[in-house]
Parts: sequence; C-alpha cells; structure tokens
Amino acid sequence: MNKTIALLTDFGLSDIYVGVMKGEMRGICPEAHFIDITHHIQPQNVRQAAFALLNSYRYFPVDTIFLVVVDPGVGSARRALAAHADGFHFLAPDNGVLSYVLHERESIEIVEISNSDYALPDNSDTFHGRDIFAPAAAHLAAGVPLASLGDAISDPIMLPAPELAISGQRVVGEVVHIDHFGNVVTSVGQLRWTRPERLALEPRMGSEKTELPIQSPTAHISVGGTTLIGICHHYSEAGRGDLLAMVGSNGYLEIAVNQGSAAARLDVTIGDRIELQVE
Amino acid sequence: MNKTIALLTDFGLSDIYVGVMKGEMRGICPEAHFIDITHHIQPQNVRQAAFALLNSYRYFPVDTIFLVVVDPGVGSARRALAAHADGFHFLAPDNGVLSYVLHERESIEIVEISNSDYALPDNSDTFHGRDIFAPAAAHLAAGVPLASLGDAISDPIMLPAPELAISGQRVVGEVVHIDHFGNVVTSVGQLRWTRPERLALEPRMGSEKTELPIQSPTAHISVGGTTLIGICHHYSEAGRGDLLAMVGSNGYLEIAVNQGSAAARLDVTIGDRIELQVE
Amino acid sequence: MNKTIALLTDFGLSDIYVGVMKGEMRGICPEAHFIDITHHIQPQNVRQAAFALLNSYRYFPVDTIFLVVVDPGVGSARRALAAHADGFHFLAPDNGVLSYVLHERESIEIVEISNSDYALPDNSDTFHGRDIFAPAAAHLAAGVPLASLGDAISDPIMLPAPELAISGQRVVGEVVHIDHFGNVVTSVGQLRWTRPERLALEPRMGSEKTELPIQSPTAHISVGGTTLIGICHHYSEAGRGDLLAMVGSNGYLEIAVNQGSAAARLDVTIGDRIELQVE
Repeated sequence: MNKTIALLTDFGLSDIYVGVMKGEMRGICPEAHFIDITHHIQPQNVRQAAFALLNSYRYFPVDTIFLVVVDPGVGSARRALAAHADGFHFLAPDNGVLSYVLHERESIEIVEISNSDYALPDNSDTFHGRDIFAPAAAHLAAGVPLASLGDAISDPIMLPAPELAISGQRVVGEVVHIDHFGNVVTSVGQLRWTRPERLALEPRMGSEKTELPIQSPTAHISVGGTTLIGICHHYSEAGRGDLLAMVGSNGYLEIAVNQGSAAARLDVTIGDRIELQVE
Repeated sequence: MNKTIALLTDFGLSDIYVGVMKGEMRGICPEAHFIDITHHIQPQNVRQAAFALLNSYRYFPVDTIFLVVVDPGVGSARRALAAHADGFHFLAPDNGVLSYVLHERESIEIVEISNSDYALPDNSDTFHGRDIFAPAAAHLAAGVPLASLGDAISDPIMLPAPELAISGQRVVGEVVHIDHFGNVVTSVGQLRWTRPERLALEPRMGSEKTELPIQSPTAHISVGGTTLIGICHHYSEAGRGDLLAMVGSNGYLEIAVNQGSAAARLDVTIGDRIELQVE
Repeated sequence: MNKTIALLTDFGLSDIYVGVMKGEMRGICPEAHFIDITHHIQPQNVRQAAFALLNSYRYFPVDTIFLVVVDPGVGSARRALAAHADGFHFLAPDNGVLSYVLHERESIEIVEISNSDYALPDNSDTFHGRDIFAPAAAHLAAGVPLASLGDAISDPIMLPAPELAISGQRVVGEVVHIDHFGNVVTSVGQLRWTRPERLALEPRMGSEKTELPIQSPTAHISVGGTTLIGICHHYSEAGRGDLLAMVGSNGYLEIAVNQGSAAARLDVTIGDRIELQVE
C-alpha cells in the first residue's frame, strides 16, 4: 500500500508546526513518506488552498492521503472532515477547502472526525493540525478504515467557483494565484468541474467542460490596466522582459513576463478582474 | 529501529547546506528518513533554537535522532556534543542549544564527538554540520553506539531559562518567539522544567510545575504598549482583526489577532517584556 | 539500489510545482526518496544553479539521480538531457546547467530525452519539470536504462567558467553566490576543473588544479569598495560584527561578518569583481 502523505497548509516553514506533525505521524505510521505540496498558502486563504489542491492532487498516486490544514475557524464549532474520493484520501477542516476537488470526483464518502482514539489525548484549541488531522492521517496510512474516524456526513461546506462569466466572445474572470515567478494565474481556462452524484451537493459551478476562445490570435486580454493582444504558446515567444498571455501548465490563462515578473509589472493581486474579448 | 533524523538549523533553504547534509547521511545510512523541524531559526539565535527544540522533540517517536546546528562558534574551541536522553538522540554544538530539553529529561548521557572515524576526512572550519554533526547522526542511525563517538562529559553549557518572575498575582515574562502568523509567543506558561538527576547540572530554572493564574477572566496583559483584559480559548472568540490573548498550542501565553498578525499590530520583538496582573 | 532523487530548481516553495513533481515520481517509483538541494536558485539563473550543483553533488551517494530544472528556454527548441557521469545521474535542460559538473567528471554519457513512453501524455509548453524531467528521473530510479530515454549526443551546451584570472601574485575573480547568512562567496579557490575525455567538449575552463596564494597573511582582498588584509581560518577570529576573509566550506574565498551579514555591509551582488594581491 502507498503510504504517501501530502501536506498543504498555510503554516509557513519558519516554525516547528510542520515538523511536529510529521514527527507525530512517523510515530503512528513508521512507513509514512511525506511530500510537501506547499506550506505557503496565504494565511487563512481557503480559496487559494482549494485551487492549489485541485491542481496538484491528480498527479499523486491513488491512495495518497492529503493533509490540508488552512483553518481560520480552528477551535470554533467547525467540523473536522475526512473524505475518500475515487481512491484519494483527504483530511481538512469543514470550510470548503476540499470543494473544488469534490466537485470533480464521482465516488465520494465523507465522515466527521470524532473518534478520540485517533487524536492526541490533550487537544489544543489552536493547533488541530497536530492534535486531530495529522494523527487521523497517520492512522489512515496505517490501515484504519475511514468509517472508524467518525460518522458519515453529506453536507460539507462548498465554495462558489472562481469568477468566470462567458457571454459570446467575451469572458470575465479573476486572478486566482500569483506564483513564485510572478506569473499571474487566472480563472479563465478549461475548467473541469463535474457534478458529484453521490452527494446532494448544490452544483454552484458549471458542470460542462467549456471550450474557451482563448487560442484566438486576436484575443484582447485586459488586466491590471494593461491590454495584451494574442495568446503565446511559450514564454520565449515574447522578447526578454516583455509581457505575454499564454495558457499555463494547469490549463488556465496566465499573464507572464519572459524571464521576469508579470506581478511586479502589473501590480495585480488575487481577486482582481481579467477580461478577454475576441473581436 | 526507527531511522528518523530530525533537522533544526539556522541554515535557511536558499543554499545547498541542508541538502548536502541529507545527501551525505543517505550515503552513510540508506534507510535514513529526514524530517525538517525548521531551518529558519534566526541566524545564530541559540535560545530561539533551544525553545523550538523543547516544543517539538516530544512529538517525535523515541529513537529519533535530532541534528541541531545553530553554531555561532563553529571552528573555535567549542565542543561538538552527542547526547542520549530517555531514548531520544541529539547532536549539537556545546552552546546551550540542548539545555531546555536536558533540563526536563531524567536519563541523560553526553559525549564529546571526537572520533574521526565518524567524521568527513577533511574538516572545514565553517561547516561542522556537514563535516561532523551530520555524519555522526547518520552513523548513530546506522547503529553505531553513542559511546563510540567520543568520551563522556558531564558539563554541557546550560542556558538560563527564559525570563519568568512570579510574585503573587503578578507575572513578568518575555517574548520568546514570533510565529509565521504573527502570533507573539511568551515565556508565560506551565513550564515543565525538571532537574536532571544523573548530571551535576546547576539547576538555573525552576524545577516545579507552576500553576499560573492565566485563565483568569480579569487578567490584565500588557505587552508592546497595549493592555488586553482576559484570556480567550480560541482565535474566533475575538472579532476578525481584533487582538486577543490566549494559551497557545504549546502551553504558553500568546498574543494573537484573529485572522491577522499581532506582531505587525504591536511591533514587538523577541526579548520584549510582557506583564500579567490578576486584579 | 539507491533510489535517492535530489532536486535543484528555481521554483521556490510557495507554489505546487515541487510537490507535484514529487507526487508524480512516487507514482512511477514508489521507493523514491527525495532530497531537496534547494529550490531558491534566482529565477532563470543557470550559472548560479550550475555552481550549486557542482558544490553539492559529490556529497550524495553514487547512483543518486539529480533533477535540475532551471529552464528559461522551456517550450522553445532547447533539448532535454539525461546524463550519466561516473555513477551519478543528471536530468536537466540543455542550457549549460550541468557543465561545471561535466567538466570534472571522466566517464560521461549524455542522451537527448525524446522517448514519449517516459513522459506525461500531455506536454505543456511551460512546465517540463513535471511533464518530461520528473517522469524521466522516476523511470531511471525504477530501473529504465539511460539509453532508453533517447539517442546519445556529444555536444551539450557548456558554460564558460566563472571569472578567475591569475597573474603572479595577483588574482581577479568574481562573486558567484551570496548565502543565507550574507556570506559573499567568490570564484577564487582551488577549482578542480578537469577535462572530460570521452566527449569532444571544448575546454573553456582551466584544467589544472591551481594552488592559489590565498593563505598568505599579507594578502589584500578588495571587494565592494573595501579592502581586507589577511585570511582567517574561522569566523570567530574576527570580533563580533567584524568583516573577515576566509576559505569557506567548499574551498572558495569568502567574505563574511562574524555573526552578521557581509552582503548587507558591502552591498555587493553576484557578478561583482574581487581582487586579491599578495605583497
């Protein structure tokens, strides 16, 4: 059995938090192998984490356990969830951070983590990553069945999709991420939202694969006060230091600078509007 | 046998230093599994590292080997230590970085690392992490006994405890850490210092578990020019963006902002004074 | 067989990129063990990455697979390479990032990665780390022979060596790296460039080991508008906060401040000139 535990948090790497969770999990499951997706989600930014999880989980082997802790409501009444979806396992607070993934999966089971046999004896009110989610993840890796963690639920909190309005030849979206290179990632893409069948989830996102006109050479892309014309296929089609629009590695429209930072050039932030118009 | 090696340094992650130590250790002990506690201790801040180690090591499985390299005296005459304490192993320069842990353990053995069979052939004067501590850690993981590394010593350098003065209903402490979220962690807590028995260590810290009056709803907490009243149990008891005091996940009084940064609000730094008064 | 895969990129750690590559590789080779050298190479700085690889790879066990992705030309016609050199494996874009290592190895084989059986089905034009290099690395770890990845080539792009001119008692070099502590690392050292014999590579770097006069107590070192006299053996020979010159852990002349940052003091950047004169 695959014992890979993938971690996605907003904890950063300057504290002991991530290391403590891993140490604890190695004690419960000595064969556990850890892969950090990232720990640099903006503090408490649940939507950014949901988007990061959506674009990463499918590259991991089936049976991977995803430990997702972006948890502004820690210590309040929000539930702690463990989910199984088409072979992948997820542990996360019930705040919508799993919703983009759940929207595209078919076979889903979710339980509310409540069995104290699989938690630390002394729970804090501030670090459920250490006290609840990490031990639950390690026990799953060690072979404990999902159903042993708690009772099934069918009403997880689901986030609305990122802004994406399409009318004729005009598309309006939003900036959803800015990466380490300063590439500005938008919600404009071939989103693969599907409607889960086993849960009575309200489908707040479109369920059809959309063919966007984003390969058009006459597309006008407006973002951060600048308008670009046309979509490139790779960075080096633009001159060094020049702005370009292209479809990034996860299928979303991105604004980039060849060997530079588009974010620094455009002064945009997450949530800013982007428009695309084909003439 | 558990082959977990946990790393705690001030090396940062932008250089090759941490990766080189791990590569070297995999060559000596191919089953070694590495967990990073953190590499972002402030450069040469031995006390911050000692506090981080104290609050993390007990979550790791027994037999874990802790490689602790915060080493302002590298290349000078300071000794290199390897210690065994109640089943945990530690490697570190003799500058006090292990002292908070040693204070709370009972069964302690310490040797000065001197056996060149377990070091790199060409020692540098600047990177004993690579040349002395990492190979010693990997050889311990591979089964070499502690005593093979060098002769026993009984006088490791011990740091004074963080400031914590209690007189009646008044407590004076200090800021000991500021975390990634901007939470201000203080020395005011249920410190569990105990006096080690096997070593003639001078006990510079209190050896009793202290019951502090920090759950009082009328406690006045003063830090960084601000006074807060009362102690919350979790972040969301305060309004979004509001300051609060609470007991953090390691048992210390913290000043936080619900979904914000207390450090940015208060402009405090490590070493600043905090007062708590129950009326 | 050793299944260690060492990663060196400019991806940073705030995105999903590194985690995605590791998840993908665990799916192909479930025994793969990952060691991060660093992901904080300056964006697109091929020379800095080449220098980091040169100074780290030899500490890893033979058979380690190095996945080196600093790739300003991704999506253009630049080739993707896999190399075998004296037992070590390397995967990298053909932009010179391997050249310092190749210069000092003897037995070298290089192929151009072209076999789509060992790549992701849908290649992006922007993330060949995920689509080409990581799957090739994992297949090598799983036992696929180098020759199966593509046809042999003998003309990899080779970078010129860092600036290092020696005439009599005068040496001129350049700043090649500034580390996390602010230590300024220069090209002045006992460089071990050798001429590879099996490839018709033009030797653009000196092939002799040079004995530099850098241990002289009367050496004058000029960099960033400051002149230092003499070479120390370790940091604590200088007063706390004082500048010093010394030979660093990889054999290069460094400018440091005892318990401080030389880079902050001198305001130098990578590429700046350094002169050493023995009187």
